[in-house]
Amino acid sequence: MDESQYPRSNGRLASQIEFLLEVDQLKGVLRQSYLIDKSRRENSAEHSWHVGLMAMILAEYSPKPVELTRVLKMLLVHDLVEIDAGDTFCYDEQGYLDKEEREEAAARRLFGLLPGDQARELWALWREFEEMETTDALFAASVDRFHPFLHNAFTEGPSWVRNGIRRSQVLERMAPLREAVPALWAYMEQLIENAIGRGLLKP
Amino acid sequence: MDESQYPRSNGRLASQIEFLLEVDQLKGVLRQSYLIDKSRRENSAEHSWHVGLMAMILAEYSPKPVELTRVLKMLLVHDLVEIDAGDTFCYDEQGYLDKEEREEAAARRLFGLLPGDQARELWALWREFEEMETTDALFAASVDRFHPFLHNAFTEGPSWVRNGIRRSQVLERMAPLREAVPALWAYMEQLIENAIGRGLLKP
Repeated sequence: MDESQYPRSNGRLASQIEFLLEVDQLKGVLRQSYLIDKSRRENSAEHSWHVGLMAMILAEYSPKPVELTRVLKMLLVHDLVEIDAGDTFCYDEQGYLDKEEREEAAARRLFGLLPGDQARELWALWREFEEMETTDALFAASVDRFHPFLHNAFTEGPSWVRNGIRRSQVLERMAPLREAVPALWAYMEQLIENAIGRGLLKP
Repeated sequence: MDESQYPRSNGRLASQIEFLLEVDQLKGVLRQSYLIDKSRRENSAEHSWHVGLMAMILAEYSPKPVELTRVLKMLLVHDLVEIDAGDTFCYDEQGYLDKEEREEAAARRLFGLLPGDQARELWALWREFEEMETTDALFAASVDRFHPFLHNAFTEGPSWVRNGIRRSQVLERMAPLREAVPALWAYMEQLIENAIGRGLLKP
């Protein structure tokens, strides 16, 4: 359908629809993690749904109360920049060198499709998530990190094994959970020992 | 990973994790709609993410204010029953005959994995969504119906064409939008005329 086929009776709505059609591409961004049934790799749209549900179910474990609406909004938008910037594997040190630059350009283009007020709201939510300084962002980022960890632990750790990941790398990546969601941190520690025992993670 | 490998230090958390692993199967439930790039059919987990984002961006068009947290929670859980009951195509009259029964059994099993308080919360959210009586549920259900409509309109309507769908069927399916989100209803009417002109929908 070409551009001229967008109904244009309402410019604001037309911009929002254009954005909502554009972000469909998140369903084509493949992550390192596998589905629990190991049939294929997960994409970032599925992941974004799963972490939203996870935040809803596990919010009670944040020692400081979180504002769930803000957490859910952050999680719905947190990976949109991957549409242009791709998914950077969390243990890829090279990929992280220009990750910020690539993602900022993506955010400008994608959020820029929206009316100004909403573009600013999404930009602010995304920056807050990335900066992990507020209670809501720390909780959202913790859930976002816990999710692929859980998938690895329950699918024989394909991305750990393939990349020779060490316990210390996982602990560093998961560090925000220690204060943000102590109960998940403790649960995770048991899964790490279990994964080392099964040879999925290097000690 | 067998059952004995779940850490059991916290029975409540273990139940929640078991639920969160089980619902991963939503990523394998295929819908009738295609991705906007037409590369493949969409699954229900991706759809659930997309409608959440859509609700967030379009909430301003509900004439009655919606409580976004409740809308997002409903949309995150609304399709979970499809894990057991499958996706029933919205124009499949046969499939609708026992849809309710199949989905209630699914809800009992899936939500029943959670601690009792959360099982009851998810059940209540899912029923509210299905009954479409509250402002929040009407808005959530409208977005849920608008999403595949939009995909059809922008991908040459594969599920409309394949099933010989008529304008009246679409209007009936989309009826809740008329009062719940009048701006979307008006936009949709233009897309329907456009789709009829292109031979994607029967007049």
